[in-house]
Amino acid sequence: MGGAGRRGLFISLEGIDGSGKSTQAGLLAERLRERGIAVHLTREPGGSPGAEAIRSLLVEGDPARWSPETEILLFTAARRDHLERVILPALARGVIVVCDRFADSTRVYQGAARADLRRTVDALHDLMIATEPDLTLIVDMDPRAALSRGLARSSGEDRFEDMGAAFQERLAEGFRRLAEDAPDRCRLIDGAGAPDQVAARIWAAVEPLLARRLGPAGVT
Amino acid sequence: MGGAGRRGLFISLEGIDGSGKSTQAGLLAERLRERGIAVHLTREPGGSPGAEAIRSLLVEGDPARWSPETEILLFTAARRDHLERVILPALARGVIVVCDRFADSTRVYQGAARADLRRTVDALHDLMIATEPDLTLIVDMDPRAALSRGLARSSGEDRFEDMGAAFQERLAEGFRRLAEDAPDRCRLIDGAGAPDQVAARIWAAVEPLLARRLGPAGVT
Repeated sequence: MGGAGRRGLFISLEGIDGSGKSTQAGLLAERLRERGIAVHLTREPGGSPGAEAIRSLLVEGDPARWSPETEILLFTAARRDHLERVILPALARGVIVVCDRFADSTRVYQGAARADLRRTVDALHDLMIATEPDLTLIVDMDPRAALSRGLARSSGEDRFEDMGAAFQERLAEGFRRLAEDAPDRCRLIDGAGAPDQVAARIWAAVEPLLARRLGPAGVT
Repeated sequence: MGGAGRRGLFISLEGIDGSGKSTQAGLLAERLRERGIAVHLTREPGGSPGAEAIRSLLVEGDPARWSPETEILLFTAARRDHLERVILPALARGVIVVCDRFADSTRVYQGAARADLRRTVDALHDLMIATEPDLTLIVDMDPRAALSRGLARSSGEDRFEDMGAAFQERLAEGFRRLAEDAPDRCRLIDGAGAPDQVAARIWAAVEPLLARRLGPAGVT
């Protein structure tokens, strides 16, 4: 689904917990709005009423509540709802969608746990989602620094934050490999430094695409 | 999943609303228990704590809450949880599982709405479930008679009961076609008459399989 009628731009931000990607998603949306561009800022899992209800099933209760396979099905159901109810309609109206996590998070988190789960994620994605962002900004971060940041602001909601440094290292590596595997779509962004320094790196990756898509008026 | 270690028997009951299949599932479980056979009676959507939580998302709220594709993903997530947490462990212990609706319901209900949805159901089933009952009892019923029964005891929970006679006719036809397409697994049971008459027809279909699987001791 998704190709036809996409007039806006679909930008996702990815990275490990504590990488600063949520902060950066907010800063990017703000900068675009300051330029008079219509933006919809959203996040996964969730982003639509139905997907938020599925998110509650995913993040509440015992971490062993779901098997990895059931979890992947629930993530895909939430993504399908978010995509068809929010993302695609916004893109059809010419809006820029900035999304904090999308399919790459499911690929990398499940793939870091077990290689066969990555294949399951990909097969389900091809069958039920079949949509990629126009641009994916992967905020790369030293897992030790990110982990301490992530733990400091833990909401108790994110089960992945408990998995320790070795797992975070595999995740960071998984995101880097993704950037190598899909160079046309993904940009690896150095996440070190102050938020406005990272935001400047992100803007340098976004601006050329804006100019191409929206014309010079879009980047006054 | 599922083939290895299956020592029990997996029996599903299928049919349109009002066909009497839930009553028959209960009568079959009772009859097996009277013979000293360990039985687990269950139903879909639901049947495990996780699947019941997903069921709530499916049956509550606006009937247009989910697209058909998201709905199929949620049914498949619930089924995966039910299968791996309840059905397969019971079968591995040698228990007979009697299940009121399984994958065939999703096939027939979605397929009666749109042919391409049936293909989506099948693709997801092959990828994430890949398990069929040993025996599927399809309780066949005149849709007009079933509809009046179904409406009379409507819980307000079942969205399909509101869809009218023409849709019920397509469903009944879909279940009959299923029985033709999978004759080794499916038995078409005439649902007309009193419950004990239908139960006798069902027992005639179950007994030979019991004798084969459990030996003569199982059918004293």
